[in-house]
Amino acid sequence: MKKHLTFLIILVGFSVTPCLAQTEKTINEDFKPSTLNQPGQEYPQVNSQGYARFRITAPEAKNVVVNLGPGGTRGGTPLTKTEEGPWMGTTAGPLDEGFHYYHLTIDGGVFNDPGTLNFYGSTRWESGIEIPAHDQDFYALKDVPHGRVQQILFPSKSTKTSRRAFVYTPPDYEKSQKKLYPVLYLQHGWGEDETAWANQGRANLIMDNLIAEGRIEPFLIVMTYGMTNDVKMGGLKNFDITPFQTVLIDELIPFIDANFRTLANQPHRAMAGLSMGGMETKTITLARPELFSHYGLLSGGTYSPDDIKDKSKVKLIFLSCGSFENAAGVKNAATALKEAGVNAVSYISENTRHEFLTWRRSLYELALLLFKD
Amino acid sequence: MKKHLTFLIILVGFSVTPCLAQTEKTINEDFKPSTLNQPGQEYPQVNSQGYARFRITAPEAKNVVVNLGPGGTRGGTPLTKTEEGPWMGTTAGPLDEGFHYYHLTIDGGVFNDPGTLNFYGSTRWESGIEIPAHDQDFYALKDVPHGRVQQILFPSKSTKTSRRAFVYTPPDYEKSQKKLYPVLYLQHGWGEDETAWANQGRANLIMDNLIAEGRIEPFLIVMTYGMTNDVKMGGLKNFDITPFQTVLIDELIPFIDANFRTLANQPHRAMAGLSMGGMETKTITLARPELFSHYGLLSGGTYSPDDIKDKSKVKLIFLSCGSFENAAGVKNAATALKEAGVNAVSYISENTRHEFLTWRRSLYELALLLFKD
Repeated sequence: MKKHLTFLIILVGFSVTPCLAQTEKTINEDFKPSTLNQPGQEYPQVNSQGYARFRITAPEAKNVVVNLGPGGTRGGTPLTKTEEGPWMGTTAGPLDEGFHYYHLTIDGGVFNDPGTLNFYGSTRWESGIEIPAHDQDFYALKDVPHGRVQQILFPSKSTKTSRRAFVYTPPDYEKSQKKLYPVLYLQHGWGEDETAWANQGRANLIMDNLIAEGRIEPFLIVMTYGMTNDVKMGGLKNFDITPFQTVLIDELIPFIDANFRTLANQPHRAMAGLSMGGMETKTITLARPELFSHYGLLSGGTYSPDDIKDKSKVKLIFLSCGSFENAAGVKNAATALKEAGVNAVSYISENTRHEFLTWRRSLYELALLLFKD
Repeated sequence: MKKHLTFLIILVGFSVTPCLAQTEKTINEDFKPSTLNQPGQEYPQVNSQGYARFRITAPEAKNVVVNLGPGGTRGGTPLTKTEEGPWMGTTAGPLDEGFHYYHLTIDGGVFNDPGTLNFYGSTRWESGIEIPAHDQDFYALKDVPHGRVQQILFPSKSTKTSRRAFVYTPPDYEKSQKKLYPVLYLQHGWGEDETAWANQGRANLIMDNLIAEGRIEPFLIVMTYGMTNDVKMGGLKNFDITPFQTVLIDELIPFIDANFRTLANQPHRAMAGLSMGGMETKTITLARPELFSHYGLLSGGTYSPDDIKDKSKVKLIFLSCGSFENAAGVKNAATALKEAGVNAVSYISENTRHEFLTWRRSLYELALLLFKD
């Protein structure tokens, strides 16, 4: 377990190797507002090559830096005060496609860019920017029937409060009052919360589109907060799964099965998570194999054949990561599981790191495989 | 109409008369983190008298001001750089009870306080702080059955997109698949959006508590974005209701009636709104009296007896505001309506202004009266 945790801590840390496209010399002046900007905000902007340009108004500031660099790393982009007034700057290289968290450092203090929407990551509400991906169609808002994202408050005796979860219900959920659905319990990463998979991950739109295309049979997705014991920066090595496992197994699952039309049995229950959520998934699925049949670790480690005590209970193990992460480790783990007789599938997201485009694509690929056996 | 709009523009403007408690001389040193702080954040803090204290880290900044002053006005609280490093400051007087929007001005730029959650107001995501109200129990999160807040995406031909709305469904909504419910369409104010009534307004918790106490029969609340034509600062006088009316009447209501178990008729359909949402409510209910039977204007103007063409169609007119707003105008309007034979009720929220505690209380009072006839 300790080895696995160390691996995860490395994964969770911010990538430090910018993927600079050294041949890129001319910056195309076709910048447009990022799709994640607050209503009416012109900046930040993104161009067709994936460069991001920032504009911040702070006339008396000494120093303004955007904590986002080429690739999508925290490398940093210093802004310069323009003659017109605002501070402006462009990333030194293109960003990876997809979603990136960032923030500003203004005169030594950490603030958000007032131009963008906020997303919960790194245990704070952060700024977000979106570099349009060449395959963005699969998570686009389209003119198709839409499911709902239902905020529920469920009673939790173990934590002495009502806890929040979000439940994706597919478009046909309200049509028939008899149909029962499989359920995927889907966990966020370290420093994120139950809002991440819908906001940053666009899980509902990915599902709506897959269902509209007839590529999957509808299922429910349940998303709740997985950092029950308040893991702080660097505290992951002291992470104790017990409080969250109690909330999930003893409180949330029974509540979902009692209040939604679920197929309330092991063959129709899956668990997956990204990064730290993968660690949680691995620990909980191995501890309670009678509850889950489909497991997914998205940039969240691997299972070894020895981990699986009763192979007949496991219908699918899905392992994924970005190509700039430990792709070989993920592929080799899936191969070893397959050789041991487990239905394991690996997926590598091309040209992405430990970020949400990896996980949007991973959810898409996972959804295609779930509950098909 | 023009006169009404001018009145509203004044209402919508920030209050400028701080209610300084001049006798308050000693500040109690019993400050605690605001309940709206981000997880783990110690500041801002609030004391038992309603003073707020702020701490901002920005070591190299020249000037840090919190745009929130006594009462809850934008009066401003300048922070001072402490020897330990952070900028700190306390409001010059107590704030009114309830929720207040605010932001920081750092070296001339507008940013949010990284300590707090964000709330959409003034057409931007703003910082928020909560001064515990003496009557906060009615909107507290309690150990009672909770309804859901369901995010839906409904097709809108008139605006060529899928639009978002939130639907509060009461705790018993899933229990019986036959029960039909009345519906309240509830609008936010200028510069806010469809998230306001659940986030700032705690509409779902107000309903959960009223239902748990057996004080009301459950109904649905539908909340959507009412600034369809993108009203910007000062543009309210050019506001055109038509695009929003089309979305609400021709698109949202039919969608709700088709996808939720509603009592889809005029006697069981209400519309209410705060501030600009009151203006929308007044205009739309008067234009389409065959659709709505219960009207509510919360700090959102008044109806005159002449406005009501067919008194038999109107079951309730609810008018409210804070005691620091135009309370006499609201009371007089209700009296005039009653004298003209309309079932009108006025409600004045004690010691509040044009802010969300006024509207939380107003929703509570309105809910007690809706659909009872």
